[in-house]
Amino acid sequence: MVGASGYSGLELVRILAKHPSVEIDKVFANSSAGKEIEEVYPWFRNHLHARLESFTLEAASGSDVVFIALPSGEAMNLVPELISRGKKVIDLGGDFRLKDVSLYERFYGHRHTAVKEVANAVYGLPEWNKEQIQSASLIANPGCYPTSAIIPLAPLLKEGHIEARGISISSMSGVSGAGRSSSSDLSFVEVNNSVKAYKVGNHQHIPEINTVLESIAGTNISVTFVPHLIPITRGIYTSSYASLAPHVTTTDVMRAFRRYYESAPFVRFSETSIPEIKHVVNTNFIDIGFRLYPENNQLIILSVIDNLIKGAAGQAVQNMNLLFGYNESEGLL
Amino acid sequence: MVGASGYSGLELVRILAKHPSVEIDKVFANSSAGKEIEEVYPWFRNHLHARLESFTLEAASGSDVVFIALPSGEAMNLVPELISRGKKVIDLGGDFRLKDVSLYERFYGHRHTAVKEVANAVYGLPEWNKEQIQSASLIANPGCYPTSAIIPLAPLLKEGHIEARGISISSMSGVSGAGRSSSSDLSFVEVNNSVKAYKVGNHQHIPEINTVLESIAGTNISVTFVPHLIPITRGIYTSSYASLAPHVTTTDVMRAFRRYYESAPFVRFSETSIPEIKHVVNTNFIDIGFRLYPENNQLIILSVIDNLIKGAAGQAVQNMNLLFGYNESEGLL
Amino acid sequence: MVGASGYSGLELVRILAKHPSVEIDKVFANSSAGKEIEEVYPWFRNHLHARLESFTLEAASGSDVVFIALPSGEAMNLVPELISRGKKVIDLGGDFRLKDVSLYERFYGHRHTAVKEVANAVYGLPEWNKEQIQSASLIANPGCYPTSAIIPLAPLLKEGHIEARGISISSMSGVSGAGRSSSSDLSFVEVNNSVKAYKVGNHQHIPEINTVLESIAGTNISVTFVPHLIPITRGIYTSSYASLAPHVTTTDVMRAFRRYYESAPFVRFSETSIPEIKHVVNTNFIDIGFRLYPENNQLIILSVIDNLIKGAAGQAVQNMNLLFGYNESEGLL
Amino acid sequence: MVGASGYSGLELVRILAKHPSVEIDKVFANSSAGKEIEEVYPWFRNHLHARLESFTLEAASGSDVVFIALPSGEAMNLVPELISRGKKVIDLGGDFRLKDVSLYERFYGHRHTAVKEVANAVYGLPEWNKEQIQSASLIANPGCYPTSAIIPLAPLLKEGHIEARGISISSMSGVSGAGRSSSSDLSFVEVNNSVKAYKVGNHQHIPEINTVLESIAGTNISVTFVPHLIPITRGIYTSSYASLAPHVTTTDVMRAFRRYYESAPFVRFSETSIPEIKHVVNTNFIDIGFRLYPENNQLIILSVIDNLIKGAAGQAVQNMNLLFGYNESEGLL
Repeated sequence: MVGASGYSGLELVRILAKHPSVEIDKVFANSSAGKEIEEVYPWFRNHLHARLESFTLEAASGSDVVFIALPSGEAMNLVPELISRGKKVIDLGGDFRLKDVSLYERFYGHRHTAVKEVANAVYGLPEWNKEQIQSASLIANPGCYPTSAIIPLAPLLKEGHIEARGISISSMSGVSGAGRSSSSDLSFVEVNNSVKAYKVGNHQHIPEINTVLESIAGTNISVTFVPHLIPITRGIYTSSYASLAPHVTTTDVMRAFRRYYESAPFVRFSETSIPEIKHVVNTNFIDIGFRLYPENNQLIILSVIDNLIKGAAGQAVQNMNLLFGYNESEGLL
Repeated sequence: MVGASGYSGLELVRILAKHPSVEIDKVFANSSAGKEIEEVYPWFRNHLHARLESFTLEAASGSDVVFIALPSGEAMNLVPELISRGKKVIDLGGDFRLKDVSLYERFYGHRHTAVKEVANAVYGLPEWNKEQIQSASLIANPGCYPTSAIIPLAPLLKEGHIEARGISISSMSGVSGAGRSSSSDLSFVEVNNSVKAYKVGNHQHIPEINTVLESIAGTNISVTFVPHLIPITRGIYTSSYASLAPHVTTTDVMRAFRRYYESAPFVRFSETSIPEIKHVVNTNFIDIGFRLYPENNQLIILSVIDNLIKGAAGQAVQNMNLLFGYNESEGLL
Repeated sequence: MVGASGYSGLELVRILAKHPSVEIDKVFANSSAGKEIEEVYPWFRNHLHARLESFTLEAASGSDVVFIALPSGEAMNLVPELISRGKKVIDLGGDFRLKDVSLYERFYGHRHTAVKEVANAVYGLPEWNKEQIQSASLIANPGCYPTSAIIPLAPLLKEGHIEARGISISSMSGVSGAGRSSSSDLSFVEVNNSVKAYKVGNHQHIPEINTVLESIAGTNISVTFVPHLIPITRGIYTSSYASLAPHVTTTDVMRAFRRYYESAPFVRFSETSIPEIKHVVNTNFIDIGFRLYPENNQLIILSVIDNLIKGAAGQAVQNMNLLFGYNESEGLL
Repeated sequence: MVGASGYSGLELVRILAKHPSVEIDKVFANSSAGKEIEEVYPWFRNHLHARLESFTLEAASGSDVVFIALPSGEAMNLVPELISRGKKVIDLGGDFRLKDVSLYERFYGHRHTAVKEVANAVYGLPEWNKEQIQSASLIANPGCYPTSAIIPLAPLLKEGHIEARGISISSMSGVSGAGRSSSSDLSFVEVNNSVKAYKVGNHQHIPEINTVLESIAGTNISVTFVPHLIPITRGIYTSSYASLAPHVTTTDVMRAFRRYYESAPFVRFSETSIPEIKHVVNTNFIDIGFRLYPENNQLIILSVIDNLIKGAAGQAVQNMNLLFGYNESEGLL
């Protein structure tokens, strides 16, 4: 585990510490190296004793898999050597999600220095890439917004139930999604009692949503995406607006979800109930609801996840389960 | 003032108590009749002394204008007699906003019993109906969501900068918008740390948005609208997604806003800054921002109001100011 | 499980569903009888399938232990018959906590109808009554505020490190402590951004704190206790102010905590760190910190719990573990 | 106005901009010099146009009074020269509140360099020092916690209704009290859903409370004070526990409050109602409630203020009103 001092890293340690088939070998957190994890997060007292260390390749040599939960641009410095030493790597950051390196460099704003590994990385969305994940050496764990948007939209696009053009996605995210930050913009006083949109039209998750949906739907996709910061700690609510293909009914939509997700252990969908963030907080589930709006030939699709679990650490463990042949939901229910 | 025991009514009393040209004659609140307002709202101690009374036509006879802040379906029982006695009436509820009574009955779920007054009511959106408001006898104060959506969309539709078809509106509202309620769905525990969409595709503000925009744009409008309940006390954030007409630029959008709102005292718009709810809380302003998304021929329009002020009590006072020839912003800055 | 529709009941179901040695036989919730638990709490979808039933003695006959999570005054109607049929009962409410029935009737405001069972009930504070709990037939699970106050104060009183007279206890509680209520006083708008003290000097937990501390310290105790409602969902922060006995040092205080709690799996204490609610949320721990204030011969004692877990459902399961000979922390870490 | 970029400074600008007898001459904010205030706080658009400047003595020369809202330790660098040029100064920080400079240096942690001005400063608590304030040249505006604690305790001590020894004060504060900070400890994620005590027993407001109460009561005072940070934006709730003098009744307590505060425009007290933060938010009021606890010979005193108004900017304006002979509540109701 590299990068245990962020919110996703913390959540990952929490989940792994209870996972019946996992032994945590090392917890790396350069900024807190030398401390007990319970000094940094008193929540861990009597849950887990672990000394935080500075990352070195040698220190990581005893692990079967290395999770990386670092800010974008940092994983690419570690991954090539880890892979070359035969380690499995699951990266929770954005460095290996986009196959098109020029897109990465445009949206993330820095050069990519591990281009070869990008080509071999598997996008770790278990609901769509299970087989590839099982044999991957490097897994790019999906972004939180993309997870919330791709899972509900993918079956509808693949079945042709919604048009590929003109999809608008309005997402609301809890503040933990912005990471452990000391920015005064994320202080309690600035965030409480308010809402703001941010990175309107240029969020780095836009190309991720587009390219993953394109690869599933087999057609060009260019969504309009606006994220909003709201005063909750964790959770994402995503409301998507799409044009309905002719003659599509509620039954068709349900049939599409059943076809692709009947056996997906963490996808819950319903034609009646409306998702709420509190139903998925502290779980690895994604809840999906929807309403046809036939007056406008529109479909409204609503989806919720816990951004730190299904949107980060939980999905990473789900990928690890597949990678090592454990039950997909082991340690996650 | 009828209905002082709800959040909009309370806010109205607060504003009127400080308005330099207003004397509050009577404060009606049937459920609390006989009490001092400061017993019901201790906030008012040393601000305002007023005894709450049960509403009667006689008690209201000394007032030049009667504000009604009652749940939908109740104002229609009072308005005909008040109008027939020559009172000016400003209704903060929904009873007189829709000219088409059948639409009203479908979306509000009960019969309309004051159809004649509907025909004479003026929709109290000062930015568009100033002259009619000045000579009205009955003003239907706009709904909170419609205020937040119509003001930014109207100039763009009127100038032909966005397509009338395919507008999607995603709104987030603070809980005071649901009124003073004892529903356990609105309890702190249920609302805090969560988000939910509600009345998806059948909210009573949908026909209001459509018909007002139609009357301004002169063409059929049918928006897709989804309101979400978020854990803040007051404020609405509205994100609208529309198809851009060919060749429209940021400059065109700004020019449209300037054309219609240059002299509107409570509309603030900007091509650079992104609205935030905290910038308008406790004010009568609406803040508007936007981004062109030329890849998708889309325009993203963001707008924020305080639902209890510009979305209710403040706009009612703005209407009163126009009705009585005061400065439009008197008592509101 | 009787009373699954309140917050404590819900939390209890959550914990029991994951407990390795427990099989949930029946879930009783009269108000929702006939529904699946996931209809009432969508969070449970794919976690637990259980049909809610109306409570009857017959339906409960297959269970080894019956948990009761009902409002005060209701358990006393069920307990005598359950006990007479040989069931073990753990009552999360207040009906069996006070040995002095007249105190109960004064503070709870209704007559007690199961006086005989009161005499046999064991107060379920595992840190002090472990042996009695192991052989109990009826366990009165402690109140949330008493749990937060008694655990830190008891060793100090027993060792004579603080004076029995003049203890002031200032507690802050999250709103879930007030139960699942539709009171408008507990609505989001009323609670958010505010704080209020309530039941000042007459809260029903006062006699519970006093009598339990008296039985431990062997002297008269009469604390001054003020609870405050604050805008968080779960958690209690208790700050206690006591007069220090002569010559008592930080080392003495730590030695007292070690003496009584060295092997208590859920008590964490420290002479350096200051408790925070977030460190115990979703856990069965109580965290204790303190500061000597020698200028005033005072000791400040700070303690935090999750009111729904250590203050209710978690402690109930801890009691169950002792009752059935399981490891005390089974299912709770 | 010096220091407009903090929360108290911002609130002060808000109040002064509406004050009928005030013209804001200059707004100094070194960190944002050159910007319009509305660029820094978009809330101000159309409320106030003012260019932020770097502070210089020359730039301040046209003002009758200079408000300073800077972190502790900075005002002392400006005050001597301002006073020597005949300016009236109202300092919202802590530099001139403690007459005993050694106490200042111990609790604030740095040397005092304007000792002479300390001697001449008047403690700006209008309810007790009105005459001195009217003729002051330098006013030390009280701290937020001291304001909330001193106002309720002073009359009771002065009348001998409570003992001087053994007063415990438990306060809860909103996060704006910590100032505009980029500390990650004050980020939304860290503060939301939690509570923590801080500076237990060594907060810099302790000597302020003690010395001001001593000067009023004429006897030694040493309170035990614990502040807690809670997840609200603004407001302080202070619960004080004191030993009741023999034979004191509720009537005596009310008589004491009436004697000292009958004509105080911003002190509201009641023997029946319990204070709530929401009753004073956005006002300059302090609300006081209390309960005798005769079993323990204790008095519980509850008080609430808006920390940014009565605890900072509002009280500063109240002081200014007295200084310039305006009505004490002008611009504050």
